[in-house]
Amino acid sequence: EPHTPFYLIDKKRLLANMDKIARLRAASGAKALLALKCFATWSVFDDMREHMDGTTSSSLYELRLGREEFGGETHAYSVAWADHEIDEALGYADKIIFNSLGQLDRFGTKAAERGTAIGLRLNPRFSTSGFDLADPARPFSRLGEWDLPRLESALDRISGVMIHYNCENRDFDLFDAQLSRIEAEFGSILQRLDWVSLGGGIHFTGEGYPLDRLAARLKAFSEKFGVQVYLEPGEASITGTASLEVTVLDLINNGKDVAIVDSSIEAHMLDLLIYRETAKLPRDGDHAYQIAGKTCLAGDIFGDARFAEPLKVGDRISIADAAGYTMVKKNWFNGVAMPGICIRDLDGSVRTVREFGYADYKSSLS
Amino acid sequence: EPHTPFYLIDKKRLLANMDKIARLRAASGAKALLALKCFATWSVFDDMREHMDGTTSSSLYELRLGREEFGGETHAYSVAWADHEIDEALGYADKIIFNSLGQLDRFGTKAAERGTAIGLRLNPRFSTSGFDLADPARPFSRLGEWDLPRLESALDRISGVMIHYNCENRDFDLFDAQLSRIEAEFGSILQRLDWVSLGGGIHFTGEGYPLDRLAARLKAFSEKFGVQVYLEPGEASITGTASLEVTVLDLINNGKDVAIVDSSIEAHMLDLLIYRETAKLPRDGDHAYQIAGKTCLAGDIFGDARFAEPLKVGDRISIADAAGYTMVKKNWFNGVAMPGICIRDLDGSVRTVREFGYADYKSSLS
Repeated sequence: EPHTPFYLIDKKRLLANMDKIARLRAASGAKALLALKCFATWSVFDDMREHMDGTTSSSLYELRLGREEFGGETHAYSVAWADHEIDEALGYADKIIFNSLGQLDRFGTKAAERGTAIGLRLNPRFSTSGFDLADPARPFSRLGEWDLPRLESALDRISGVMIHYNCENRDFDLFDAQLSRIEAEFGSILQRLDWVSLGGGIHFTGEGYPLDRLAARLKAFSEKFGVQVYLEPGEASITGTASLEVTVLDLINNGKDVAIVDSSIEAHMLDLLIYRETAKLPRDGDHAYQIAGKTCLAGDIFGDARFAEPLKVGDRISIADAAGYTMVKKNWFNGVAMPGICIRDLDGSVRTVREFGYADYKSSLS
Repeated sequence: EPHTPFYLIDKKRLLANMDKIARLRAASGAKALLALKCFATWSVFDDMREHMDGTTSSSLYELRLGREEFGGETHAYSVAWADHEIDEALGYADKIIFNSLGQLDRFGTKAAERGTAIGLRLNPRFSTSGFDLADPARPFSRLGEWDLPRLESALDRISGVMIHYNCENRDFDLFDAQLSRIEAEFGSILQRLDWVSLGGGIHFTGEGYPLDRLAARLKAFSEKFGVQVYLEPGEASITGTASLEVTVLDLINNGKDVAIVDSSIEAHMLDLLIYRETAKLPRDGDHAYQIAGKTCLAGDIFGDARFAEPLKVGDRISIADAAGYTMVKKNWFNGVAMPGICIRDLDGSVRTVREFGYADYKSSLS
């Protein structure tokens, strides 16, 4: 094992998620594409590839990574493509999904000439997001088209739509009700399409999720409109499969016991900072500590933890659920040592697939 | 020029800031160290070196960059050093500033044996920060020591203290009043030291700042306690010297005119997202647009802008004040193309010092 900090991906847990995805695909007929925006650690793609159908992307680089490193069916989505990107993008894409009619107008002919299947993002104007920041249905949202006449004007150029409106939705009944709303409001569009992607954000690999009901619901949707359904699991693909391993560097008490560790929420688990959330920390025992990062940011705090024994400098702490939206956003804030990436294989052994050093820090600038 | 997006550093403006720093140093006797946590783009260190005294740091990597690429006097600060870092750190440091008595206890002897000057961070328990997140005086702050008996117990081992409590403070009278409070509360400590760093966050290069009054105040402080004063300008060193250059990729109207550009606040100007602030955008003209990024994040919005003419796809927009806390935090969220780094030389010509491509994205993971 390298020095902490490092992300540790547990292959056994990853395969347990893959097993659920494979079951859902088999029972529903839906195809599942890994959303690379959430997780793109390509060292474990070998373990995911046979359980999923391919990838979806949010930029040219993600698209290329999906095509070259994952394979299978490769969906290309971007909020906006640049003129100088589109030819390369079409070279990797099985389907290209435009975010707006404007982008479809600009690049649709080029895609059609190449024979690439074309889709459009449909925004149903509701979502399950509890955060305005992450809510694709927020006022004036730039994410997709919702106006029926505008959608209809695209129908002779597209074969499908992508509708991404779930966000860590653990509630099947809510999913069911919202899908019924989509059927009611957009059914006239859907029945003229070949495929519909329902996006990501359905937490179907979570503990206790009624996978069979979801499968039946997706199958009914697919049959009702005669469409191939796609799902784009990001967090659902890798939830619970990785930890961030850190070491206690200092213990202080300025009115509260605080353990400073060799990591940082801003640099290594950025969403904790953006969404003002706390990390999944050990919570059993009589000894309470606030776990804090080592950057200059006063609010660089992972959260409150409890341990059976008092902490000492040098103790290791494992921060759970560190796979999604972590490695893809890590950065060199404060020049803090960047976590390596390790994999725990099925036999329990841990191997390092990437370490970052001073040369990486220096070359991040110029 | 490369494809947008890119950061564009204007050397003429940088030198104007450097001139103010040099004047302050000459008039006050204070030394000025660049705070690398804010800005560490080493390609322009040649233009900064002769106007400043050196660098200060918040990690081993920043420390090394300061020593190797900037030179001069090199201060080593970190919220917490790891056992495996300390020897290397001492090899680069002229002074090492510990954040806590615990770290001083752990590593002080090692530093003293090497002859490295030792300091401690003193937290005065007040600050000018308007954000709890960034406020080093927030409750239970882990940043520095404030208890007088604890500080006194360190006095035979340290020659100075670092007191960082300003945050973009443009108000000289507030600075003056808070420094007087420090004199009153910690004078018994200060008079037994050789040096005092007052940290960063004093916005003395800003338009209209009374530089002469600041110089006189620092000089009086220095003489009163017989200490060498240090300042650690980060933002003040580079304020107003760089822009983020972006291009309009799409124009949409979902109830509001929105221009989508080839960048992202989360990936390229992260503090806008963390502190819920808006970018410095053009604000003159009759044509109003919301400027939004191209990531999947619904709230990836730079802010509202105005232009003399209607925007078209392909138009270039310059986002001002993009030097501080931007390049040091950029990341690969969504795989969005990372801004290159360009410098506008004194003759107006622009040269590219760094471009990032797919290989950089791919190797950010594994």
